[in-house]
Amino acid sequence: MYEHFEWFLNKERVDEAGQEMYDLMARLYPITRSITGNGVRETLKIIQEYIPLNIHEVPTGTQVFDWEVPNEWNVEDAYIKDSRGVRVVDFQKSNLHVLNYSVPIHAKMTLDELKNHLFTLPDYPEWTPYLTSYYRKDWGFCLPHNLLQSLPDDLYEVKIESTLKPGFVTWGELYLPGETEEEILLSCYVCHPSMCNDSLSGVVLLTLIGQLLTHLKRRHSFRLLFIPETIGAITWLHENQDKVGRIKCGLVATCLGDPGQSTYKRTKHGNHYLDKVVEKVLEDSGEPFQIIDFFPMGSDERQFSSPGFNLPVGSLMRTPYGRFPQYHSSADNLDFVGSSYLANTYQKYLQVLHVLESDDRYLNLNPKCEPQLGKRGLYSSVGGQKNAQDIQFAMLWVLNFSDGQNSLLDIARRSGMPYELIVRAAKDLQGSELLVSVMQTDERLYARRTR
Amino acid sequence: MYEHFEWFLNKERVDEAGQEMYDLMARLYPITRSITGNGVRETLKIIQEYIPLNIHEVPTGTQVFDWEVPNEWNVEDAYIKDSRGVRVVDFQKSNLHVLNYSVPIHAKMTLDELKNHLFTLPDYPEWTPYLTSYYRKDWGFCLPHNLLQSLPDDLYEVKIESTLKPGFVTWGELYLPGETEEEILLSCYVCHPSMCNDSLSGVVLLTLIGQLLTHLKRRHSFRLLFIPETIGAITWLHENQDKVGRIKCGLVATCLGDPGQSTYKRTKHGNHYLDKVVEKVLEDSGEPFQIIDFFPMGSDERQFSSPGFNLPVGSLMRTPYGRFPQYHSSADNLDFVGSSYLANTYQKYLQVLHVLESDDRYLNLNPKCEPQLGKRGLYSSVGGQKNAQDIQFAMLWVLNFSDGQNSLLDIARRSGMPYELIVRAAKDLQGSELLVSVMQTDERLYARRTR
Amino acid sequence: MYEHFEWFLNKERVDEAGQEMYDLMARLYPITRSITGNGVRETLKIIQEYIPLNIHEVPTGTQVFDWEVPNEWNVEDAYIKDSRGVRVVDFQKSNLHVLNYSVPIHAKMTLDELKNHLFTLPDYPEWTPYLTSYYRKDWGFCLPHNLLQSLPDDLYEVKIESTLKPGFVTWGELYLPGETEEEILLSCYVCHPSMCNDSLSGVVLLTLIGQLLTHLKRRHSFRLLFIPETIGAITWLHENQDKVGRIKCGLVATCLGDPGQSTYKRTKHGNHYLDKVVEKVLEDSGEPFQIIDFFPMGSDERQFSSPGFNLPVGSLMRTPYGRFPQYHSSADNLDFVGSSYLANTYQKYLQVLHVLESDDRYLNLNPKCEPQLGKRGLYSSVGGQKNAQDIQFAMLWVLNFSDGQNSLLDIARRSGMPYELIVRAAKDLQGSELLVSVMQTDERLYARRTR
Repeated sequence: MYEHFEWFLNKERVDEAGQEMYDLMARLYPITRSITGNGVRETLKIIQEYIPLNIHEVPTGTQVFDWEVPNEWNVEDAYIKDSRGVRVVDFQKSNLHVLNYSVPIHAKMTLDELKNHLFTLPDYPEWTPYLTSYYRKDWGFCLPHNLLQSLPDDLYEVKIESTLKPGFVTWGELYLPGETEEEILLSCYVCHPSMCNDSLSGVVLLTLIGQLLTHLKRRHSFRLLFIPETIGAITWLHENQDKVGRIKCGLVATCLGDPGQSTYKRTKHGNHYLDKVVEKVLEDSGEPFQIIDFFPMGSDERQFSSPGFNLPVGSLMRTPYGRFPQYHSSADNLDFVGSSYLANTYQKYLQVLHVLESDDRYLNLNPKCEPQLGKRGLYSSVGGQKNAQDIQFAMLWVLNFSDGQNSLLDIARRSGMPYELIVRAAKDLQGSELLVSVMQTDERLYARRTR
Repeated sequence: MYEHFEWFLNKERVDEAGQEMYDLMARLYPITRSITGNGVRETLKIIQEYIPLNIHEVPTGTQVFDWEVPNEWNVEDAYIKDSRGVRVVDFQKSNLHVLNYSVPIHAKMTLDELKNHLFTLPDYPEWTPYLTSYYRKDWGFCLPHNLLQSLPDDLYEVKIESTLKPGFVTWGELYLPGETEEEILLSCYVCHPSMCNDSLSGVVLLTLIGQLLTHLKRRHSFRLLFIPETIGAITWLHENQDKVGRIKCGLVATCLGDPGQSTYKRTKHGNHYLDKVVEKVLEDSGEPFQIIDFFPMGSDERQFSSPGFNLPVGSLMRTPYGRFPQYHSSADNLDFVGSSYLANTYQKYLQVLHVLESDDRYLNLNPKCEPQLGKRGLYSSVGGQKNAQDIQFAMLWVLNFSDGQNSLLDIARRSGMPYELIVRAAKDLQGSELLVSVMQTDERLYARRTR
Repeated sequence: MYEHFEWFLNKERVDEAGQEMYDLMARLYPITRSITGNGVRETLKIIQEYIPLNIHEVPTGTQVFDWEVPNEWNVEDAYIKDSRGVRVVDFQKSNLHVLNYSVPIHAKMTLDELKNHLFTLPDYPEWTPYLTSYYRKDWGFCLPHNLLQSLPDDLYEVKIESTLKPGFVTWGELYLPGETEEEILLSCYVCHPSMCNDSLSGVVLLTLIGQLLTHLKRRHSFRLLFIPETIGAITWLHENQDKVGRIKCGLVATCLGDPGQSTYKRTKHGNHYLDKVVEKVLEDSGEPFQIIDFFPMGSDERQFSSPGFNLPVGSLMRTPYGRFPQYHSSADNLDFVGSSYLANTYQKYLQVLHVLESDDRYLNLNPKCEPQLGKRGLYSSVGGQKNAQDIQFAMLWVLNFSDGQNSLLDIARRSGMPYELIVRAAKDLQGSELLVSVMQTDERLYARRTR
């Protein structure tokens, strides 16, 4: 089945995907999203043009573990007008200007009174910060520090036309059954307004990965979540407690389109199979990368990994949240991300999924001494190729270590050879009936047993 | 209970303790101690002014494992007089001048004859060495090399008024029962004459720690030993074989007052809980330190860790024995040590005991997803403080890893956060009924069972 | 029993052995060997002058696992004559000139036609390469590139007087029973023609080691194999499947006489007891060395370690195969190797065998506190020696860690002391009845049980 992946892993297709992701991001960028409300619905509707998302809604007031689904927030308009009636801060120009989850207000006040509700980034005076107040009733405006500095003493009219009313928390979900019920979880968040690297890069990446997975034969089942961060993850876990046991591992997709190097934040388990997979993919890439250990801050991995679930969920990013200055500001925009970076990350995600889908443990069917590769044409089959010796060495590695205990990933890690070469050698040896899969057999049995 | 420790861990109290230790050391310094004899008794009597030491004595000739308690040694006077009757070497000026455990002698001899019994340090010609001959009958004098060089040919009168007679080996012991019978062992040695860093620094440190522990509520039981090195440790182990099983871990206290950095000599087990505790305390100190692996030479840890007992006993020192030139010479005196160094070491010992006493494993009572800290006031409670974010992160660490398996120390080590912050976060979470202790419950059960 | 080894480990004896090995190599050098044929028989016959080798033969056509014993190859003469009748390439001058396993040929051809069958090393134009074609029927000549360049257009007569007929694969074997049936396997290969470092260095080393072992009391049994590489190893394993279970560990001996530093290629297991032994011997040598991890290419360790046998077989070499330019060329000759390098390697092999034979786990019979070494004369016995303190420290290490779990090798590794010092301390302590062997007892019991 990995052939399918190979087909999609060609450079040209990956570059196309990069452009498609960027275009979709540009379309989603202007929408005013929050942890609830119509922006989320509109976003999910657009994604449904690409993949058959199921939309789920849970009503305000529902108790979800220690939390309660909050009132739904929507906002129509918001501004600060000076005494001449000029909108000096205007929600129509950027949805970031409104403190997310602001209660409605309509009042006149002096600049001094107003200042308690104005938020800026003095270190980046041209940028507007992105701030929220989900659980503390408040209102406010975010604006560039330079603009704040330039505001004269005046009587200002402030208006936020928002509503906070019983409604729903909304999310989208794509479940793709595979040969086994064991699931790979991929999760992104749809609750940020105009934020490109943080949030949207994950949304567009999972959209294209979902599209690809839909057309592939799958060994694992896949579950893709497009959820509001924190409250969405908590609500999903609450509503799906019976399914959590099937999740083998997962990745939270965010911060995937910036120019920085790849960063992998390990699962809580630290040395989980998934961690080995992602780290091998990054090593094989030949590009610089960094590995960071799990910490219980960050995105929804902190909910998935809470001790009541303890799911092995990592996060494959580029520059992590909070480590680029544009984070949570108007500078995390369409100029900050690039289609080539999205394409590069997309390729790495596919390679991770490729390992998860193709890795297997084998038994060497000729375990006593080496088999005679020459008489089976396993030399000549590769004789004409540049990497003839590499593939032959890969075969010797696979034969020597295929005792049913070592997976192809184990062998690739131990030999220092690229996973691709090891999986190819295994395929050639299987073709000559020198290898038989152990794991797939086990898993099929397991799948039968658990259905 | 750790509050008590916190109270005593304030800088002012620690500085006071440093001065008290130094003053006590100055008082103990002139006493002529050996592995037996009245100097030990006099020393223990002074310590009894601070803590209610029990004095134990075991008679000469008692078989203690492979050893036998030796004759008791006492010395009244000793000198070398030249032919004009001038004391050129005089025990009254320094007890180091007599080879410790010298047999009595009174004779006249030439310088050449005398030289076989004179010991010096040619590399440090101003210093008098400290030497012993416990198990080989001999007599001798120790003196500065310069003095030896200056002695003219003459007929010298040598006299050592010592006695070697059946008596006792003597030690002091402070046992402080705690909530459980599990014991922390703290041991120092009282057998060296005028040696400040080696020997006396441990004696004064344990005296002040004993004084503090007496006034605290204790989870563990504590046993403080003031024993002659080697024969005292062997005798104690022989007489207390039934109690050894209660010892959880221990520290030998010596070389604690010099200007060098802290040094921790690990337990024989190498990766014992105690080793993790001490190493975390040293890391959290922000000061330079070194860790050295166990070796079966050194002080009484070699007896406690002999394979028949195998106790996890480490040694938290400053510059280790044998690694400072003043070691076992008259230069290991009151000028070599300082009250600020003693204070610094005292603080580290208290921090070690604080971890041992306060560490616990907890169960997160809201294990599914994060609890909402805001509605419990766990944000605001710390909002005004400089380290507000740190304590919040510490709470998330404690919540995520409190599955009953990880202790607070484990969490502090994994998070890289100071133990103090983690223990404080755990206390706040316990206050909000989000955590419950596992270990203390276990230990109380265990204590009941074993009493 | 290790005393015997000590006797043979003196410098003079080792130097003599180096010369003997070199002389034997010079005698074996000219013989035309291959994986079958009379050259192997002649070689083994000469070795029989030193050790009582058993000769084994298995006929052509025998199925050995996935392989079949090939026709036997012998060659009488071979040449390329120019039109004037001059032998421009002459087998009589070097057996490397014939492609090993060439089919017979007698023909006249132009230089152009001939060139398809000529092999050279353009990067080393003075050297003749060593090439084989065991399993693909072909003929050819190997010659210096300079010579090829100088050949004029001409009509050449080529003749190879070889035979490829049913015969045997031949090997020599020395089995030396010890106290237990547990075997140490030592293997070298006798299939290369005039190759000194690759192949012959292993042959002469095992010959002298066999000679020495024959005269020693042995704890382990030893099996020395002089086999053709690959097919010989496969045939031996096929014919001795019932004995493989007795092999505790083994070494493949090759590349032992060059000036490079020692190299140890680990067993497949990577952290096997044998690996620890060899690495400690190399550390104790004080000479530079390198350790490389197992890889399933190289020599016969790849057969012994195939998953059906999984034997822990490493390889202690100097510069490994393929990493010196002379490898598989006429430059791997008697000038490339030296008797001093052979002697040095010989000594290291003996030290490895010495550890394997002498290592033991002990019980400290005085486990509670240190025994009093002084009253047993264990101080004075070493007092006069330079390393008196070292041996005393070694005794303390052995006493403290001899709980029946740690072997002397473990203690040597943990203490950082030379194995020789630790084994000597153990011997002294045994002499004073402070230690008793655990392992030898176990092994003797085991040996009885399995016979």
